[in-house]
Amino acid sequence: MPQATKATAPTPSESLAQERQHASFPIRGLTYLLEDGQDKAEFKERAMFQLERDPLWRMDNTPDLSLVQVRERTMAKAQSLVHYLEMDSVARLQQRMSLISVVDPAFWTRMGVHYGLFLGAVQGQATPEQLSYWVNKGALNLNGTIGCFGMTELGHGSNVAGLETTATFDETADEFVIHTPSITATKWWIGGAAHSATHCAVYAQLWVKGKCHGVKTFVVPLRDPKTYRLLPGVTIGDLGKKMGRDGIDNGWIQFTHVRIPRSFMLMKHTKVTRTGEVHQPAMAQLAYGALIQGRVYMVADSGNMSKKALTIAIRYAAIRRQFASKPDQPETKLLDYPIHQYRLLPLLAQAYAMTFTGNEMLRLYRQLMTQIESTKEGSDMSKTLEMLKETHATSAGLKAFCTWNCLHTIEQCRQSLGGHGYSGYTGLASMYQDFAVQCTWEGDNTILTLQCGRYLVSSLRGHRKGKLLPKNIEYLARASQSITPCRANTAQEILSLETILDAWGAVAANAVAVATAEFEDALAAGASTDAAYEQCSAQRLRAAKMHCYGYLTARFNDAIARAQPELRPILTKLCLLYGSYSINEHAGEFLQSGFFTSQHMTLIRKGMYDLLKAIRPEAVPLVDAFNYTDYVINSPLGRYDGNIYEAYFDLVKKNNPKHNDIPYFESIIKPLLNRTPNADSGPDLKE
Amino acid sequence: MPQATKATAPTPSESLAQERQHASFPIRGLTYLLEDGQDKAEFKERAMFQLERDPLWRMDNTPDLSLVQVRERTMAKAQSLVHYLEMDSVARLQQRMSLISVVDPAFWTRMGVHYGLFLGAVQGQATPEQLSYWVNKGALNLNGTIGCFGMTELGHGSNVAGLETTATFDETADEFVIHTPSITATKWWIGGAAHSATHCAVYAQLWVKGKCHGVKTFVVPLRDPKTYRLLPGVTIGDLGKKMGRDGIDNGWIQFTHVRIPRSFMLMKHTKVTRTGEVHQPAMAQLAYGALIQGRVYMVADSGNMSKKALTIAIRYAAIRRQFASKPDQPETKLLDYPIHQYRLLPLLAQAYAMTFTGNEMLRLYRQLMTQIESTKEGSDMSKTLEMLKETHATSAGLKAFCTWNCLHTIEQCRQSLGGHGYSGYTGLASMYQDFAVQCTWEGDNTILTLQCGRYLVSSLRGHRKGKLLPKNIEYLARASQSITPCRANTAQEILSLETILDAWGAVAANAVAVATAEFEDALAAGASTDAAYEQCSAQRLRAAKMHCYGYLTARFNDAIARAQPELRPILTKLCLLYGSYSINEHAGEFLQSGFFTSQHMTLIRKGMYDLLKAIRPEAVPLVDAFNYTDYVINSPLGRYDGNIYEAYFDLVKKNNPKHNDIPYFESIIKPLLNRTPNADSGPDLKE
Repeated sequence: MPQATKATAPTPSESLAQERQHASFPIRGLTYLLEDGQDKAEFKERAMFQLERDPLWRMDNTPDLSLVQVRERTMAKAQSLVHYLEMDSVARLQQRMSLISVVDPAFWTRMGVHYGLFLGAVQGQATPEQLSYWVNKGALNLNGTIGCFGMTELGHGSNVAGLETTATFDETADEFVIHTPSITATKWWIGGAAHSATHCAVYAQLWVKGKCHGVKTFVVPLRDPKTYRLLPGVTIGDLGKKMGRDGIDNGWIQFTHVRIPRSFMLMKHTKVTRTGEVHQPAMAQLAYGALIQGRVYMVADSGNMSKKALTIAIRYAAIRRQFASKPDQPETKLLDYPIHQYRLLPLLAQAYAMTFTGNEMLRLYRQLMTQIESTKEGSDMSKTLEMLKETHATSAGLKAFCTWNCLHTIEQCRQSLGGHGYSGYTGLASMYQDFAVQCTWEGDNTILTLQCGRYLVSSLRGHRKGKLLPKNIEYLARASQSITPCRANTAQEILSLETILDAWGAVAANAVAVATAEFEDALAAGASTDAAYEQCSAQRLRAAKMHCYGYLTARFNDAIARAQPELRPILTKLCLLYGSYSINEHAGEFLQSGFFTSQHMTLIRKGMYDLLKAIRPEAVPLVDAFNYTDYVINSPLGRYDGNIYEAYFDLVKKNNPKHNDIPYFESIIKPLLNRTPNADSGPDLKE
Repeated sequence: MPQATKATAPTPSESLAQERQHASFPIRGLTYLLEDGQDKAEFKERAMFQLERDPLWRMDNTPDLSLVQVRERTMAKAQSLVHYLEMDSVARLQQRMSLISVVDPAFWTRMGVHYGLFLGAVQGQATPEQLSYWVNKGALNLNGTIGCFGMTELGHGSNVAGLETTATFDETADEFVIHTPSITATKWWIGGAAHSATHCAVYAQLWVKGKCHGVKTFVVPLRDPKTYRLLPGVTIGDLGKKMGRDGIDNGWIQFTHVRIPRSFMLMKHTKVTRTGEVHQPAMAQLAYGALIQGRVYMVADSGNMSKKALTIAIRYAAIRRQFASKPDQPETKLLDYPIHQYRLLPLLAQAYAMTFTGNEMLRLYRQLMTQIESTKEGSDMSKTLEMLKETHATSAGLKAFCTWNCLHTIEQCRQSLGGHGYSGYTGLASMYQDFAVQCTWEGDNTILTLQCGRYLVSSLRGHRKGKLLPKNIEYLARASQSITPCRANTAQEILSLETILDAWGAVAANAVAVATAEFEDALAAGASTDAAYEQCSAQRLRAAKMHCYGYLTARFNDAIARAQPELRPILTKLCLLYGSYSINEHAGEFLQSGFFTSQHMTLIRKGMYDLLKAIRPEAVPLVDAFNYTDYVINSPLGRYDGNIYEAYFDLVKKNNPKHNDIPYFESIIKPLLNRTPNADSGPDLKE
């Protein structure tokens, strides 16, 4: 057969192998840094291997399973993992779950609902006696008790204080009566309720002797663990199809005057006595510490999911060729196009920033919990409360911006695969669908940014009244509506980590000052505190954004300081790319505040393009360092060996084995294709 | 039961009814303007009604159908619509299809592949005799022929010239031999191939007498229309699950030395004679006119889909309440929060801009096609070619930015519903999944923006050599790397349509000048034209973006001039909101170019917040004007009557009728929940 004369392109595998010859750094060393230590990196490798070899954990055929089949697999996987759930230390279990979140987000949710939410509520809010009661009922290892978490209602999400479900104390029977008074009070989105839970941690308004004491938590049995028959007064339905995470069986629950023993109210904080006295504690706020955990993990998860998406997109871009630069040459690799580098490499740098920040947030969270546990009732709680506020605010803001950034990264990676990104078998479509909910749950992102912004405004006002600033917001000391312009002049001075960190600090401080001024103007005009905060909400969001981007850059910079010397040059380039890219993306902020001039911005943009070129040769080694196995990547286009087209074609054929089988041909297509036209135009009217 | 004492909130339906009391404009009049005339608006209403009453067109239970069930419905719907396909005029048929694109994107794709792509190729590239042959075979009304479009291959998408499939002329037999030479040459993503097509318009390299003449189009029969058995040498497989649009049966096709008569090559342009002479025409470029059609419709479709998404999100936000501003008050509507207005109302203004622009693009496209049809071989083609280039470039850029903006709008609306946006039954999850492919097909968005940018650079260079500028890019006359700053000073001067249009023109011209300078620098440094364009690709994208945003604003402004006087105040507010919002989103461009100062930007931002407040009371009437029936909206949360919670709950129950039916309880959950721990620690070693 005739062929055009042109130089032969390397095979896909050869293309990818070539990319690996250019690493200037020890890949393994970078993996250890990303995983926060060799020990953790090696444990993760063992855990990946354990999943990969378990046939129940096969992931490459999930796109074609029905809703029920996926949910059935979720519970079968639980059974296969229960050994590790029982044997792992808490730290190991958390690491394992963090990996599983990347492998199978729906399964992770099912376990997260039980361990993180249900058991988290019990551990955080039960008395020691209550806790040991539920542990004896098998709550630690899914043996007798599978929990779900009944907070949100059909008509109530973010405003927990507005929940409608009631828990009314019946002193005669020494019981609480749990009740759903209206359709909007129906417990909604309850993960695990539809198919798998035996018990629910129900958030309900506590009523005692005709008085409402606010929302408290009650463990309510839902099903008989032997038969799974619903208990009297409990009505449960299936919420069915969702955008993603079909493996978790979300349901709705209505309680119709359901009675539980008084001891099923979790009484570590608020207590109701036999005679209906209600004791509200001083330290109730500290109970919110546990709610931070989910957000902290979501920062790390945003880094991890971005790493998975980028491994696929960057390996594909190093193989896929499109358009030849000269007629007799092989087509050019996508990754060699400047515009493709611009699409992917800043997101790669951002994934590094989120990973380092996630590690740091986990450390801070553990510190906080130790502090909370050591704070005794009656002691001076102020230091603990300050720490709680700061960690809450930063984790709220980071949860929002990191999940948004990760969702954006997934979609950009998906689009960068061209048409193949739309396939169900290349990994990114389902990744988007699964991840999207992270922008909503555990606090709607927009509301979380506003909470973070409120903390910043209130900290600045406190500082102006003489209060000490916590370390991570010390930059607020320079907060002013007028800014001191950047003094750097040469490209080298401007494209330095010092200038970039300084720039974020200056612009964040300025944004907080502007928000504070708007807030105080509103107060001065007579608004209530809440109304004044509403009026400056756009500025609060903006302040939170600047704070969080600066925080991410600073944590990246800290990681460079910790890194072994051979890693520092490439990490410095990446951090500069992240900094220059994110400054460029927010150019309006830096120009309007007056920190940078137009000339500065031109230098920053030029510096960014130079960094893209400089990082390009190491792009594949930089995703190799993420150290995900092909099993975890679960996309033929992201294979380590580069043999993408054959693997993709084989996977499509394996999942769609029926060859030209058209079940509706006889009934529908055939009559359509072979019809006789209706030529009847009615009787002739002889006109 | 005890209840907290608080003022009762209006019911959801009352809440929505109140919103309709504030329209300052005739809603019906606005609908006519949006639909480009009363006649079209009324036809659309009839068409909506025809679909709604047809049981085959029921849409509220699609989330729970399997892949095969959805595809079966697609073809059953084709059967039910065939009457209209046969009776509608071309204009009506296009309007009907445009509506159907909003109702059922997958069905629209199936029909679009046949009518737009397959039949479009035949009409654009066949000789009159060939065309009537295929019309007689039933290609116009799906009676005997169902077509698909075989362009893309597993290894080749955007670069059509790089396709591998061959069509080799066998002079002895007077036949072409169609062949797939490698795995990457497999036709891929072919909509309709897996289950429903009888014929394929195959793009293949034409080889005659050992010489390649580039890619041409050949009609290749795939299946016997009586039995649907595959014809000899044709291998077809199913591409299976996709991110969305499961109703269209995408497949892959391999041809193994498949023979077709010479007359099945479409020969309006290139001809191959009986003796193997190849005649290439002078006007081949004009054949590309037809490819613009899809892009033009996608601009309109981006407007239409945004309208559907925003109807849901804004009606919901006018009903849903969250947090009370005072303890004894009902909770506040989401739409009354400034931050929620900021999330949704600029996108509402953008939907208006895209709709007016879509209407204008359709007009331009029809003009262009008339011009092409009246251009005879041998006549002066330069005017036609100029028009083709301009329409191609602007439609390419607008296709990219409008589909991106629409996808963003859908996701923002989805997130604005909180957790309910993640449900399969509230409409936005599937809307995202269905729409996402629009950023890739008919030209990958990033590549299209670069084509638009290339046209702008080349137009500016032409202008500098004395060529006349087409009307829509006359602003390039002021193109310069240094900009004349805005002369407006007061808020009123700055927040005017005049200033905003001027601003986009100035900044777009500046961006084109910067891109052109980068291009010419690269040329001067010795790069080839193509290489120089690659080097300035980020600036080309930027130039295209400024051009397209300016174009959208200008078309919105034109529509105000055409509108009846009662509509102008609200449309002016919306257009100013769109302008101030999109300038604010691109603040860096306006500040860095020096067109606006920091003080200007502060005024623009403040003006934008004032506009949000001013438009808020009319938000619901503004989505009512979109005039979609509840059937088309297909989301309980976007119902016209506001009875959202009951409708949502009912729909979830209807689609998930099995009550506490857990098919894997006995096999999986029960053994998990009721297991005896393994206490065996091995034999005692007597140590």
